[in-house]
Amino acid sequence: MNRRSFNRRLVLGGAAAATGLTSLSLSAPEQATAAAPPKTAPAGGEVRRIKMYAEKLPDGQMGYGFEKGKASIPGPLIELNEGDTLHVEFENTMDVNVSLHVHGMDYEISSDGTKMTKSDVEPGGKRTYTWRTHAPGRRSDGTWRPGTAGYWHYHDHVVGTEHGTGGLRKGLYGPVIVRRKGDILPDKTFTVVFNDMTINNKPAHEGPDFEATVGDRVEFVSITHGEYYHTFHLHGHRWADNRTGLLTGPDDPSQILDDKITGPGDSFGFQVIAGEGVGAGAWMYHCHVQSHSDMGMVGLFLVKKADGTIPGYEGHGGHGADGSKEADGSKEADGSKKSGSAAQEHHH
Amino acid sequence: MNRRSFNRRLVLGGAAAATGLTSLSLSAPEQATAAAPPKTAPAGGEVRRIKMYAEKLPDGQMGYGFEKGKASIPGPLIELNEGDTLHVEFENTMDVNVSLHVHGMDYEISSDGTKMTKSDVEPGGKRTYTWRTHAPGRRSDGTWRPGTAGYWHYHDHVVGTEHGTGGLRKGLYGPVIVRRKGDILPDKTFTVVFNDMTINNKPAHEGPDFEATVGDRVEFVSITHGEYYHTFHLHGHRWADNRTGLLTGPDDPSQILDDKITGPGDSFGFQVIAGEGVGAGAWMYHCHVQSHSDMGMVGLFLVKKADGTIPGYEGHGGHGADGSKEADGSKEADGSKKSGSAAQEHHH
Amino acid sequence: MNRRSFNRRLVLGGAAAATGLTSLSLSAPEQATAAAPPKTAPAGGEVRRIKMYAEKLPDGQMGYGFEKGKASIPGPLIELNEGDTLHVEFENTMDVNVSLHVHGMDYEISSDGTKMTKSDVEPGGKRTYTWRTHAPGRRSDGTWRPGTAGYWHYHDHVVGTEHGTGGLRKGLYGPVIVRRKGDILPDKTFTVVFNDMTINNKPAHEGPDFEATVGDRVEFVSITHGEYYHTFHLHGHRWADNRTGLLTGPDDPSQILDDKITGPGDSFGFQVIAGEGVGAGAWMYHCHVQSHSDMGMVGLFLVKKADGTIPGYEGHGGHGADGSKEADGSKEADGSKKSGSAAQEHHH
Repeated sequence: MNRRSFNRRLVLGGAAAATGLTSLSLSAPEQATAAAPPKTAPAGGEVRRIKMYAEKLPDGQMGYGFEKGKASIPGPLIELNEGDTLHVEFENTMDVNVSLHVHGMDYEISSDGTKMTKSDVEPGGKRTYTWRTHAPGRRSDGTWRPGTAGYWHYHDHVVGTEHGTGGLRKGLYGPVIVRRKGDILPDKTFTVVFNDMTINNKPAHEGPDFEATVGDRVEFVSITHGEYYHTFHLHGHRWADNRTGLLTGPDDPSQILDDKITGPGDSFGFQVIAGEGVGAGAWMYHCHVQSHSDMGMVGLFLVKKADGTIPGYEGHGGHGADGSKEADGSKEADGSKKSGSAAQEHHH
Repeated sequence: MNRRSFNRRLVLGGAAAATGLTSLSLSAPEQATAAAPPKTAPAGGEVRRIKMYAEKLPDGQMGYGFEKGKASIPGPLIELNEGDTLHVEFENTMDVNVSLHVHGMDYEISSDGTKMTKSDVEPGGKRTYTWRTHAPGRRSDGTWRPGTAGYWHYHDHVVGTEHGTGGLRKGLYGPVIVRRKGDILPDKTFTVVFNDMTINNKPAHEGPDFEATVGDRVEFVSITHGEYYHTFHLHGHRWADNRTGLLTGPDDPSQILDDKITGPGDSFGFQVIAGEGVGAGAWMYHCHVQSHSDMGMVGLFLVKKADGTIPGYEGHGGHGADGSKEADGSKEADGSKKSGSAAQEHHH
Repeated sequence: MNRRSFNRRLVLGGAAAATGLTSLSLSAPEQATAAAPPKTAPAGGEVRRIKMYAEKLPDGQMGYGFEKGKASIPGPLIELNEGDTLHVEFENTMDVNVSLHVHGMDYEISSDGTKMTKSDVEPGGKRTYTWRTHAPGRRSDGTWRPGTAGYWHYHDHVVGTEHGTGGLRKGLYGPVIVRRKGDILPDKTFTVVFNDMTINNKPAHEGPDFEATVGDRVEFVSITHGEYYHTFHLHGHRWADNRTGLLTGPDDPSQILDDKITGPGDSFGFQVIAGEGVGAGAWMYHCHVQSHSDMGMVGLFLVKKADGTIPGYEGHGGHGADGSKEADGSKEADGSKKSGSAAQEHHH
C-alpha cells in the first residue's frame, strides 16, 4: 500500500490538479466569470487500516514509512476526514524502543505512544495505534464540541528521552491533515518542519524546494520541533491565521499573515494560489530569525509559468535550489522515490 | 474570608460539579437527548472588597494569599464578572517593597503597581488597589469597545528589579478570570504557570498533577512568566484559539490547538470535557520545547473513571504523579491546604 | 514630497484628530448619546509614486527616508488603501548594496528585494519597486481571496547577509499599513519595533515615549526584527487579536490581549482610545521578557489630561521619559525633525 492509494481523493478522481486556476490577473482579483467550484472534502466515517514502519535510514537518521524500506523525513502525509477511524499497524524495525504519538486525534490512553503509559514499541515489536476523529457537534448540554479538522502531526515520544528528543532530532515526525466536510482540497501539499536548525532535517542551505505552476492550489503544512522558536515566512504569498488558513468570508476577522512565530509541537497550515497577484518566480520561504536564515533555514517555492519557466531564476542559486531532487511529481510517478527524500511533497 | 466564599458561584449553588457529563461516547459526539444547560456566568456589577497579602514562604519563596499565613504559588484565583469592581486591600508582610500589578483590568495609574508610579508598597505597608471591569459595548462613535472578559493574571512589578523579576522568580503571581454574562462555568479550574524552567515554581519532575473525573468540565488557565518562551501541550484534549477556548458555533473560524507558543506575560485559557472522546487516563501536559520537558516541565491531567480508577496508571510514575499532594478537593474541604501548595487547583 | 503630503487623509481633511473622544467614563462604557462616526478609509485604486532613500546616519546607523537627508529609524510610515498601487523610486546613497523588501504586498519577483533575484541596488544606484494591493474578493471558483489590508513592514534584505541581518541591525526597516475601505482612521499612529534588544534602535532605557491626550484614537504598530522573540505588553490598554485589533462586533470571538509573543518578521497593529476607562497616566509599554525589560526595552505611553497634565508623572523618570525628544507633533510642525529621530510617531 503506498501513499497514493491511501488518499481517498484518488479514488474520487485525480482531476483536482487539472482544474487548478491558470489565469493570473494583477489588476482584477475578483473575476466576474464563474468557474467550476473546487473539489471539497467528503463526509468522513470510514474505518481505515494502514501499516507504518519506524526505520533507521542509511545516513543514520530515522524515519517513518508506509512500506518497509520506504521511510522518509518527514514521514508520509496522513489525510483523514472528520469521522474517520484509522488503525495504524505499527512495526519497529530499529534496535531501540520507538513510538507513535499524535496530536489532535482522539485516542485512548493505550495509543498515547509514551513510555509512562507503556504504549511504545520494543525493537522488532508491533502495536496497533487507533486514532479516531469526529465532526463538530452540539453537546447534550448545548455547548459546541470542536471537530478534529486541522493541521496536526505525529512523532516519536520515546527515543533518547521520555519525550522523544532523540527520535525527533533524527527525523521521526510527519504531518496529519484532518479535513471537515466541505474543506477545499489542494492540488499539492508541502510539509515544512522546522526541526532544531534544519528544515525537514536537510543540510543547511540545501532546501527543500517546492515546485508548482501559477494557479495551482498549494497547501503548506508548517510543523515545528526541537529546541528553538522560529518564524515561518513566505515571500509573495499570505494566509489567514485561522483553522484552514483561508478566510471563511468577507467578515472573517482573522489576521492575514506572511510571517508567524511557532514553537516546538506547534502546527498550522494554509492554502495559497501559486503566484496569485504576483506571478511566477523563485519565492523564498525561510525562518525569519536572522541567524537561522543566515545559517541556511531557507527553501524556495518555485512557481513556474505554464510553459515551465521561472523568470529570473537560474536554479542552483545557493539557496538549495536543486531542481533534480524535487522535480515536480516525477519521482513519485515512476516509483523512484528514495528513503529519506522529499516526503514533504505530496501530490493529489 | 477564604477563596470559596469569594466565589459568587457558591452562592448561586454549588451543584455545577454534579451536573458534569458522565457519558462518554467515542462514536456519537452529537447526542440527540437534551440535557440541562450548563451553568453560566451572571451579569456583573457588584462592588467587592478582598484582602490580599504578600508573604515569604517557609522555603524562601514568596506568595500571595487571601489570608495571613495562607499564601500560595500561584496566588489564589480571582474570578470576576464583567461590570464588577474589586477593591484589593493589599498588605506587605515582607521585608522588601512589593506590589500588585494586574493585566487586563481597568485601573487608574495609581493602581499600576509600579515603582515609577509610586504604587508599590513598603514593608509592613498597606495599599488598596482598585480594579474595574466592563462589558463590551458600542462607543458613542459607533465602534466597539471590547469587554474585560478573559484569562488574565496579576503579579509583582518591583521585587528585585523595576519589572519584578525577583518577585516573579520567587512566586509572586496568580490568575484572574473575568467572565462575560453567559460564559459557561467550569466544574474545576487549574492554573498552569510556566515560570522560567518550572511549572508553578515546583521542583522539576514533581508535577503539579490535576485530577478530574471523565465528563467534568475542566478549565485550564495558562500563564507564562520569566525569561523563556514555552509551548503548552496537553495530551488527548484540544481547545479553540480564541477568547474562551470554546467555539462560539460551527462557523467560528478559530484554529483548534493542543500546543501553543507563549512568552512571558502571556495568558490564555480554555475548557475541556475531561476524557471526552478519549476516556480516562494519565494524560500528560508539558512544555513541548524538548529540553524543557526533558528537564521536568511536565505534569499529569489525571482523568478518572466514575469508579475512581485510571487505566494503566500506577501513580508515582516519575512524572510527579503524587496523588497525595493533589487529592481532588479533599484538602480544601478539611482546611488542611498548606501554604505554597496547590493553589492552582480551584474547585467550584 | 514629505510624509504628510503622501498621506491622503490630509487631503480629505485633517480634522480627524480634532474629533477624538474627550469624554472618559469609568462606569458607563456604552453611551446612549450618538456622536459623529469616526473617519474611515476610502476605497483605494490610486496609483502613487514616491521616492525613497537608503542612507547612512551620522551615528553609523542606517535608515530609510522619503527625502535625502531625512532618513529615520524606523523608516517613514507608508499608508495605502486596498486597491492602491505604489511605485517606490528607490535610491541607494550608501556605499554597500541595499534593497527594499516588503511584507504583505503584491509584487512581481523583480520587486522582491533579494540578492538571489537581483532586485537589490548597488551604491549610487536606483530601482523602482512596485507594490500592488487588492481588496478581498471571491475567486472565480467561489473561494475567498483575502485582501491586502494589514499591519505590514518593509526592510532591507541584503546588507551584511543575504537576509539583510546587517541592515536590519542598523535600522533599515519601517511600517506599512494597508487599510480596507471602511477601516477606522486613527488620530495618531505609533510604531514600535523590537529589534534585537532595542526598541527602534534607541539606546536602552531611553524610550521611545509616545504622547496622546485622553480620548485620542491611537494606533500602535508592533514589528519585530533580529534574533530574539519578545512579548509586547502595554499597561492599562488592550486590543483584539485579529486583523485590525478592534472587535468587529459583539460576536467576534477574538481573544483580548495586553501581551503578545512575537518573533522576527512578525507584525500586528491595533487601535486604543487613550486612557479609556483608566484615565491619564504614564503607561508603560515594554517587552515582558524579564531580562529584556530589565535591560531597558521599555517606553512610555504618556496619556495627558485635556489640560496637558499627567497625574503622578514628573518626566525623566529613568524610563526614557524625555518629553523634549518626543514632544507631540511640534517637531514635524516646525520642520525640525532630525534624521534618526522619532519617525515612529505619525500624526494625522
